[in-house]
Amino acid sequence: MKDQANRLAFERMASTEPVLVDVRPAIEVMAGMTPSTVLTSGAPREWDEYTGGQKTGLIGGAIYEGLATDAEDMDRKVRSGEITLGVPQDYGAAGSLAGIYTASMPVFVVEDANTGARGFCNLFEGPDPQRLNYGIYNEKVQQILEYLRDVLGPILGEVVRHGGPIPLKPIMRRALHMGDELHSRNTAATLLFSRVIFPRLLDLSKTRPEEVRALLGYLASSDYFFLRLSMASAKVTADAARDIEGSSVVTAMVLSCGDFAIRVSGLAGEWFRAPIPSLEGKFFEGYTQADVEYMGGESCLAETTGLGGFAQACAFTLQDYQGGSAERMAEINRDMYEITVGEHPDYKIPLFGFRGTPLAIDVHKVVETGITPAIDLGVAGKSGGQIGAGVLRAPLQCFQAAAVAYTAKYGGVKQLAGGCRWVPS
Amino acid sequence: MKDQANRLAFERMASTEPVLVDVRPAIEVMAGMTPSTVLTSGAPREWDEYTGGQKTGLIGGAIYEGLATDAEDMDRKVRSGEITLGVPQDYGAAGSLAGIYTASMPVFVVEDANTGARGFCNLFEGPDPQRLNYGIYNEKVQQILEYLRDVLGPILGEVVRHGGPIPLKPIMRRALHMGDELHSRNTAATLLFSRVIFPRLLDLSKTRPEEVRALLGYLASSDYFFLRLSMASAKVTADAARDIEGSSVVTAMVLSCGDFAIRVSGLAGEWFRAPIPSLEGKFFEGYTQADVEYMGGESCLAETTGLGGFAQACAFTLQDYQGGSAERMAEINRDMYEITVGEHPDYKIPLFGFRGTPLAIDVHKVVETGITPAIDLGVAGKSGGQIGAGVLRAPLQCFQAAAVAYTAKYGGVKQLAGGCRWVPS
Repeated sequence: MKDQANRLAFERMASTEPVLVDVRPAIEVMAGMTPSTVLTSGAPREWDEYTGGQKTGLIGGAIYEGLATDAEDMDRKVRSGEITLGVPQDYGAAGSLAGIYTASMPVFVVEDANTGARGFCNLFEGPDPQRLNYGIYNEKVQQILEYLRDVLGPILGEVVRHGGPIPLKPIMRRALHMGDELHSRNTAATLLFSRVIFPRLLDLSKTRPEEVRALLGYLASSDYFFLRLSMASAKVTADAARDIEGSSVVTAMVLSCGDFAIRVSGLAGEWFRAPIPSLEGKFFEGYTQADVEYMGGESCLAETTGLGGFAQACAFTLQDYQGGSAERMAEINRDMYEITVGEHPDYKIPLFGFRGTPLAIDVHKVVETGITPAIDLGVAGKSGGQIGAGVLRAPLQCFQAAAVAYTAKYGGVKQLAGGCRWVPS
Repeated sequence: MKDQANRLAFERMASTEPVLVDVRPAIEVMAGMTPSTVLTSGAPREWDEYTGGQKTGLIGGAIYEGLATDAEDMDRKVRSGEITLGVPQDYGAAGSLAGIYTASMPVFVVEDANTGARGFCNLFEGPDPQRLNYGIYNEKVQQILEYLRDVLGPILGEVVRHGGPIPLKPIMRRALHMGDELHSRNTAATLLFSRVIFPRLLDLSKTRPEEVRALLGYLASSDYFFLRLSMASAKVTADAARDIEGSSVVTAMVLSCGDFAIRVSGLAGEWFRAPIPSLEGKFFEGYTQADVEYMGGESCLAETTGLGGFAQACAFTLQDYQGGSAERMAEINRDMYEITVGEHPDYKIPLFGFRGTPLAIDVHKVVETGITPAIDLGVAGKSGGQIGAGVLRAPLQCFQAAAVAYTAKYGGVKQLAGGCRWVPS
C-alpha cells in the first residue's frame, strides 16, 4: 500500500501545473483569512513561545494592519482573542522567513491548472535589509509595506489580469537550465518572468506610466523577485500530495523561531518537530554563527517539491555558500535520490544528463539511510537582513517521529533493537 | 621574448572592455567600406573559389544592395572591379556563417572602452531558416533585410543612443553563470541585454510605439539575438592582440566555404589554412553529414577569445550536440587550458570553482600537445537553415603551418626528426 500511495503522492506533485492567475489582498483570496488574523511561519506555536524577530514580526504585522498599537496592546488582544494567530501552511500560503501575513497584504495567487487548487505567497519587500520578513518593523518598513499594498500589488495584479494567466512551470523548468535552483537562486526565473510581462507593461504604460515605471524598478531591484512565485508554486505542489491514505511522503518542511517541523501525507495534519540544526555555510563578512537568528521560514517547500537543495547541481554559482564546491553540491544533490520516490518529469538537471530532480521525500527512506533533506537556506541576523547562507540538513528526529506515527497508524514498519533504524516490511 | 609577447597578447584580450555604442549602417562606421563593397566570411578567396551557399550569399548581398541584378551581372561586375569583394576580418567585423556585409546593412558598433577600438557585427536575421547568412536569397529574405535596415536597425540605434553606451562585459560575465557559453548558447545574455534596454523601450514607446513593439517582438523571437553582440565583442577583443612582435597567440579563427584559417599575432596578417575537418555532433531529425554545407563562419572568434568551446562547462544544456555528456564537455573544456596562455580574469566557470576560462591560444602549445581548439558550431544545410550542431576541432595543420612561419621569422623553435612535434627553445 505504501508504495502505491507514495507513487500517487509523487505523481500529484509531478503533475501540478502552477499558473499565476492574480495578485490580490490576502483577505480576498485566502480562505479562512479574517481582518484580525495574523499568520507567521512554521508549525503552530503558542503566543508565548514566539520570540525574537518572529515575535517582533507578528507585532509589526498587527500594527501595520491597524490591529494593535504596540507590543502591549498586541499581547492583550491575542490573549483576549481579538487577534487570531495562525500559520500560512493552514491557509494555502508559504511564509518567507518570519512569513507574516495580514488581511490587506497583496499575495500572488498561483493555481494548479489541473485541479484549480491554489497556493499563495506575499511579495518580496525589496532589497532593503530592514524588512518585516526579517522581523523588523519601523516607519520605513511600514512605508514599504504600504507601497506594496497600494502601488506594486495593484499594478502587478493588473499586469496578470491584463494579459491573462502566466504558466510558471515553463519558466521554472527553463530557469533550472540557467543556473537557478529556485530557492537560493532565482535570477533566471526573474528574468524569464520579466520577459513575459514586458509587452504587458508597454500596453499598461499608456494609461499608468508611473506605476509601470515603479514596477520595472522593483523587478530590476533584485533577482529574488521570483522566489515568492516559486514558493507559491511549491505550496500548491506540496499540497497536491496531502492526505493520501498510506503515504509516507513529506508534504511540508517548515521552520519557526523554535523548531523545524514536517508534515506527512498519510498522517493527517500532524506536525513532527525537532530542534533547528546548525547550518553548514558561510557568513557575510563581519558575521558569525552567533549572529544567526531563526525566525521562521517556509521556503523549504522548494526542497519538499524537488527544488532548492534537490536541484543544487543546477546552480554552481552558489557553491561558496551551498556546499563549498561544485563537486560537493553535485554529491549532496545525488544523495537526495536515495530518499525520494522518483525523478521529476519536468525539472531536469543538465549536469546529470537531464535526469529529473529527486522528488517526494519518503520519511522511511530518510530514516533507513540516515540521509536527511538538504536545504539551501539564507540566514537572517539578529539585527535584520541576510547575514549568510548555507546548507541546512533537516533534523533526523522529525522523520523518526513521523515513522513511529506511521507505524502506529498503519503498521508494517518495525524498529530494530537498540537503534533508530527503520525497515519497512 | 615569446612568453612576454604572448603575455601581452593575453592581457590585451583580457582587459578589453566591449561596450555597445551604436547601431549604424556599415558604410557609416566600418573603415574601408564603400557603396560597392561586398564582404563574406573567412580568409580571402578568389571570386571563382566561392561556391554553394557562400557564393549565393555574395550574389544575394549584391542584389539586395542594388549592385547587381543577377548572378551573371554580379560575375561581370566582380571581374571588372565594379564590385569589390573583401572579408569582414579586414574591416573590423565578424561574419555569421556566410557573413555577408554590404554598405546599407545596420551593424552593432562595439567599442573597447580602454582604447576606443571598434568591432562590428550585423544583425540576426530572425528565426526563419531562409536567411542570407545561410546562403539563401529570395524575396522573403530581401524583405527581412529591408526590415532590419529600415525598422529594426534604426530603432535599435535609437535605443542605444537614447540611454547611452551599454557595457557588454558585465552581461557576458553574468551569462556564463547562467548557462551560456556565448557561442552556441546566448539565451541568458539575450535576456540580460533585454532587461537593460526595457526602461529605454518604455521611454521611446511614447513617440515610436510601433517600432518599439516590433523590436520587442524581434528580441523575443530568438535567444540568439545576443550572438551578434558576442561576436562584435569577440572581434574587438581578438583584434586587441594583433600585431604584437614575437607573439604566437591566435588572433582569428575563421571558416570559408573551402577552408579553415587562422591568423597569429606576431605574423602580420598572414592566413594559415587547412581543409575543414568534420564535425563531431548531432543532426536534427532527417539530416545527415551529407546535408552539411560549409559556407563560412567567423563566430569561432568566440573560442579565439576564451568563450564558446572554451567555456563549454558553463553550458551543459548543449550536451546532446556539443560533446555528448556533461562529463565530456567538462573534459573538452579542461583540455583547452593546455593550449592557452592564461585564464580569463572576468569570465569564470562555476563548475571549475570559478576558474577563469582558458584564454589566448598559443600555436606552439597546440602543435606540442596535439590538442586543437574545440569550437561549438552550428551547421547549415544545403537547403538553408541550421541542420545540427557539434564540436568542430580546428585542424592541426593550420597551427603547424603557423609554427613553421613563426620559426622562419623568429627562430627559436625546432622541428624534431620525423614528426610534427614542435618544441620552443
